[in-house]
Amino acid sequence: MNGNYIGEEYIIIKALENGVTVIGLTRGKDTKFHHTEKLDQGEVMILQFTEHTSAIKIRGQAEITNRHGTTVTSGDK
Amino acid sequence: MNGNYIGEEYIIIKALENGVTVIGLTRGKDTKFHHTEKLDQGEVMILQFTEHTSAIKIRGQAEITNRHGTTVTSGDK
Amino acid sequence: MNGNYIGEEYIIIKALENGVTVIGLTRGKDTKFHHTEKLDQGEVMILQFTEHTSAIKIRGQAEITNRHGTTVTSGDK
Amino acid sequence: MNGNYIGEEYIIIKALENGVTVIGLTRGKDTKFHHTEKLDQGEVMILQFTEHTSAIKIRGQAEITNRHGTTVTSGDK
Amino acid sequence: MNGNYIGEEYIIIKALENGVTVIGLTRGKDTKFHHTEKLDQGEVMILQFTEHTSAIKIRGQAEITNRHGTTVTSGDK
Amino acid sequence: MNGNYIGEEYIIIKALENGVTVIGLTRGKDTKFHHTEKLDQGEVMILQFTEHTSAIKIRGQAEITNRHGTTVTSGDK
Amino acid sequence: MNGNYIGEEYIIIKALENGVTVIGLTRGKDTKFHHTEKLDQGEVMILQFTEHTSAIKIRGQAEITNRHGTTVTSGDK
Amino acid sequence: MNGNYIGEEYIIIKALENGVTVIGLTRGKDTKFHHTEKLDQGEVMILQFTEHTSAIKIRGQAEITNRHGTTVTSGDK
Amino acid sequence: MNGNYIGEEYIIIKALENGVTVIGLTRGKDTKFHHTEKLDQGEVMILQFTEHTSAIKIRGQAEITNRHGTTVTSGDK
Amino acid sequence: MNGNYIGEEYIIIKALENGVTVIGLTRGKDTKFHHTEKLDQGEVMILQFTEHTSAIKIRGQAEITNRHGTTVTSGDK
Amino acid sequence: MNGNYIGEEYIIIKALENGVTVIGLTRGKDTKFHHTEKLDQGEVMILQFTEHTSAIKIRGQAEITNRHGTTVTSGDK
Amino acid sequence: MNGNYIGEEYIIIKALENGVTVIGLTRGKDTKFHHTEKLDQGEVMILQFTEHTSAIKIRGQAEITNRHGTTVTSGDK
Repeated sequence: MNGNYIGEEYIIIKALENGVTVIGLTRGKDTKFHHTEKLDQGEVMILQFTEHTSAIKIRGQAEITNRHGTTVTSGDK
Repeated sequence: MNGNYIGEEYIIIKALENGVTVIGLTRGKDTKFHHTEKLDQGEVMILQFTEHTSAIKIRGQAEITNRHGTTVTSGDK
Repeated sequence: MNGNYIGEEYIIIKALENGVTVIGLTRGKDTKFHHTEKLDQGEVMILQFTEHTSAIKIRGQAEITNRHGTTVTSGDK
Repeated sequence: MNGNYIGEEYIIIKALENGVTVIGLTRGKDTKFHHTEKLDQGEVMILQFTEHTSAIKIRGQAEITNRHGTTVTSGDK
Repeated sequence: MNGNYIGEEYIIIKALENGVTVIGLTRGKDTKFHHTEKLDQGEVMILQFTEHTSAIKIRGQAEITNRHGTTVTSGDK
Repeated sequence: MNGNYIGEEYIIIKALENGVTVIGLTRGKDTKFHHTEKLDQGEVMILQFTEHTSAIKIRGQAEITNRHGTTVTSGDK
Repeated sequence: MNGNYIGEEYIIIKALENGVTVIGLTRGKDTKFHHTEKLDQGEVMILQFTEHTSAIKIRGQAEITNRHGTTVTSGDK
Repeated sequence: MNGNYIGEEYIIIKALENGVTVIGLTRGKDTKFHHTEKLDQGEVMILQFTEHTSAIKIRGQAEITNRHGTTVTSGDK
Repeated sequence: MNGNYIGEEYIIIKALENGVTVIGLTRGKDTKFHHTEKLDQGEVMILQFTEHTSAIKIRGQAEITNRHGTTVTSGDK
Repeated sequence: MNGNYIGEEYIIIKALENGVTVIGLTRGKDTKFHHTEKLDQGEVMILQFTEHTSAIKIRGQAEITNRHGTTVTSGDK
Repeated sequence: MNGNYIGEEYIIIKALENGVTVIGLTRGKDTKFHHTEKLDQGEVMILQFTEHTSAIKIRGQAEITNRHGTTVTSGDK
Repeated sequence: MNGNYIGEEYIIIKALENGVTVIGLTRGKDTKFHHTEKLDQGEVMILQFTEHTSAIKIRGQAEITNRHGTTVTSGDK
């Protein structure tokens, strides 16, 4: 991975309950789950899109801050 | 895919009901479905256009936040 | 298509009725239809111009959000 | 055409009557018509300048949205 | 012309009377007319500067929209 | 001249009387007249600096719109 | 790592209690913990995403200042 | 001079009296006059810095519009 | 290190008490302390992220000015 | 000097008295006077930094307009 | 050092008392003092980060103006 | 020094008394005085950072205008 560009952009996910799941999906021809991270209430994860990750799925109540503003999951439950 | 540029832009899709479908369409000469992702109510998916995906189709009630603002699908149902 | 630049720009089309047609026209010397996508009411399609597509035609009532604002087709019917 | 830059800019043409004609003129030494597209009332066409097209001519009542604002053809008829 | 940069800028000319003439002048050592396009009232032409065109001359009543604003020809007639 | 950069900037000259003269001066070691264009009242010329032109001289009453605003020649006559 | 780009962006983490944990996750195919840093109350850590780190996880009460604003972990406890 | 960059910047000089002199000074090791242009009242000259010109001297009453605003020569006479 | 890019960004740390510690952490695979600098009250240190430093830890009361604003350590003591 | 970049920036010096002196100092290892230009009252000189000039000294009452605003020499005499 | 980029950014240090010390720290693997400059009251030093300097330490009462605003050392004495 | 980038940035120093000293310090491994320029009251010097100069020291009452604003030396005398 030497010489690759490392982007400046990142996304901030704050868990609002225990057991929030952050799932990375692969960038390649196949779009598969390649990593799952669990967050407890109040934990924060900051992450980038990478050579291996072009999509992210978030399950459970969480606050997602990004360049387009803030989205709260499960707000309608 | 080594050495490729990884864009900074992404789109945020929040499901407002169970069974929202996010479908990736291929970038190449043929425009075909290559991946389908199901979202339950309140789940959020953040995704980029990639070497393999140049169009995305969203079915079911969802809130789509992007660089041009926010669009809500099925709002007229 | 390896090594090509993947643009950051995209257009958002939301169908306001069943049977909205989104047609991709080829970029090359000949400008021909190369793909047709049907959208039902409330469905959203997000797409980019690509190596193969330099023009898009939309038929049926739809809301098109882009960098120059929002256009509603068939508004005068 | 591999490896060429694909611009981010595009123009949006909305037909305000049946039979609006969008004509592409060639970029090369000779400036000739190379493509003609017919739009019915309410249809929208979104297009880019390309390697082959450096001028566009629009006949019939249409609304043209672009980076410099919006122009309505035939407004004085 | 393969591999050349295609600019994002363009100029919009709307004819306000029949017989508006848009003339392309060559970019090279000699500055000569190389193309003449006639516009009828209400027609719109959108064009770019190219490898072959570095100057444009407009005769007849027309509205010219560009990055520096809008100019109306023959306004003092 | 293949492969050269084509600038995005241009200048708009609108003749306010008959016989406005637009003169291109050469970019090279010698600064000489290389082209003269005559404009009648109400005609508009849009032009770029090129590989061959690095200065422009305007004689006669004209309105010159450019990136620094608008200048009217002969205003004090 | 010679010749790599060193980004200008950074994130500021201020511990609001003893024992705040800042965990770096690897950028590669596998997303694993590769470093853990403990912060006592009032300590500040400023860090960048690197060739080796594409995600960061923060546990314990902390104030995280970044390009999208400020997030406080565990605020709902 | 093939392949050189052609800058987008230019300066606009409007003569406010007859006999305004615009003098180009050479860019090289020696700073010498290499061109003199005479302007009559109301004439406008638009010029760029070039490979050969890195300084310009203006004599006589003139209005100079540039990226830093407008300067009038001889204003204190 | 010849030919490397030297970033324009820097961080300003002002000690508000004696004994403020500024610790540089290594950028490589291992994240280790590689330098410690002590600041007395009122002293200021201005520093950049480098090829060798991708994280900084600050202990003791200090004011940290950076592109995201100003953070004061130990403010809750 | 072929192929060098020609900057877009320039400085405007307007003499407010006769005998204003504009002195170019060399860019190289030695900082020496390499050119002196005399300006009479009301004359304007527009100049760039070049491969040969990295400092300029102005003597006598003059108005200097530049990217940081306007400075008047000798204002306190 | 030929061919290296010379940054545009700089920092301005104004001594508010005699004996202000400005210390340059090395950019390399070892962070060592490599230069010390003494400033008397009212003197100003303007400096850049370089290939050799990635950190600066200031002792004594001084006003430091930079891209993030102005910091005064020793203000709490 | 052929082919090097010539920066667009510069600093403006106006002497407010006779005998203002502007000292250039070397960019290399050793930070030494390499040039001293004396300014009399009202004289202005405009200078750039160069391949050879990465720091400047100013002694005596002077007004320094730069991208971060204006600093007056010796203001507290």
